[in-house]
Amino acid sequence: MKQLIIASTSTVHGSGYLEYLMPTLIEFFKESKEILFIPYARPGGISYDAYTDIAKKAFGKAGISVKGIHEFDNPQKAVKEAKGIFTGGGNTFELVNQLYQHNLIEVLQQTLENGTPYLGTSAGSNICGVTMMNTNDMPIVYPPSFNTLAMIPFNINAHYLDPNPDSTHMGETRETRIKEFHVFNKTSVLGLREGSWLEVVGEEILLKGPHTARLFRQDKTPVELTTESTIRNFLA
Amino acid sequence: MKQLIIASTSTVHGSGYLEYLMPTLIEFFKESKEILFIPYARPGGISYDAYTDIAKKAFGKAGISVKGIHEFDNPQKAVKEAKGIFTGGGNTFELVNQLYQHNLIEVLQQTLENGTPYLGTSAGSNICGVTMMNTNDMPIVYPPSFNTLAMIPFNINAHYLDPNPDSTHMGETRETRIKEFHVFNKTSVLGLREGSWLEVVGEEILLKGPHTARLFRQDKTPVELTTESTIRNFLA
Repeated sequence: MKQLIIASTSTVHGSGYLEYLMPTLIEFFKESKEILFIPYARPGGISYDAYTDIAKKAFGKAGISVKGIHEFDNPQKAVKEAKGIFTGGGNTFELVNQLYQHNLIEVLQQTLENGTPYLGTSAGSNICGVTMMNTNDMPIVYPPSFNTLAMIPFNINAHYLDPNPDSTHMGETRETRIKEFHVFNKTSVLGLREGSWLEVVGEEILLKGPHTARLFRQDKTPVELTTESTIRNFLA
Repeated sequence: MKQLIIASTSTVHGSGYLEYLMPTLIEFFKESKEILFIPYARPGGISYDAYTDIAKKAFGKAGISVKGIHEFDNPQKAVKEAKGIFTGGGNTFELVNQLYQHNLIEVLQQTLENGTPYLGTSAGSNICGVTMMNTNDMPIVYPPSFNTLAMIPFNINAHYLDPNPDSTHMGETRETRIKEFHVFNKTSVLGLREGSWLEVVGEEILLKGPHTARLFRQDKTPVELTTESTIRNFLA
């Protein structure tokens, strides 16, 4: 049975890396002892080692050890045998590119379906959706496909931002971009604000954290879901 | 000899569609009489007809007629025979996707090399670069390649935005995204602020408009180019 935490961001303003989530994560990973970290999204182009160290430090305080997937000879085997998995944020295009290069899409799908606890933040959350088509990231590399893990039956827009009524900038708002997406695609999109996360247990998907989340469905008016909502009830 | 106007945006805050550029465009298209409009980027998913009407209205005031590429049976022939070409903004992924679907990449390259005046705004400017990898748009469709027209030897980041020091949002700044791009790619990137444009005549590329532009080169500190700068001098 799937067990996932799908978080909008690793870090909320004014707080340390994963700090706001750590009480939840200690409970979530209580039987994991060691977590496999997937650093492929490389925020700012940071090295896999340096990125893994950040995750090690955050989890170390809670007595949970972390090992980077790049430290294993066989990344597929590392995923299959992991007691817990964490995919960090960064660039979603590069993350998805590396998952395909290492033939990890199917093995991740099977492993998560089998119940290995999985934490995603930002790009690591985007890949839980049907496609990565609602990422905010820049297309700095060309992945072989935009299809992702489809662990949930909709897409994630992480770091969701409301339109700023004072802005004089002519670039599209996040809502406009998602509406454009729905001209070409049917998949629903959940705009997850920073500090919000989804708790997935089997087919149940619960919104957690202090904020509402904005759900966009093709040809329907967007709705705000309150925290503790079961997302499934709104998808039909 | 190439003749291009590569504009950050079609519209600056508080002014009508193309209004700030129209004096320049009247001179630029003075021998064109009719312009071919490429509406493939479809901002907000607007129809080709409705989008073309917006361009028709803006140029109509200046006595220049506009015809959409979708009104022609043979889009390749339409490009080859055009007296002037304008590609409007919207979603760069969908624009590039349609250019590939209609086999227009090479024919556009040849036509622009031969001197047909070309105006791009936003997505229509991104495609003048080597690749579309510095677009700000959402990847709502999967194009067969990120390679674009390479009419200039660098990439464009349209609607360039400086970091907001008051922001509490944890998403990446534009500068961070472009630095990430340079972990994986060598191509220089020009951040063009809204209201700026490039005037390309042959191999000469001049920055125009009221703002400086920010040039990002791999492994170098970004520089601010003043208006009327010749970009080429800074690429070496």
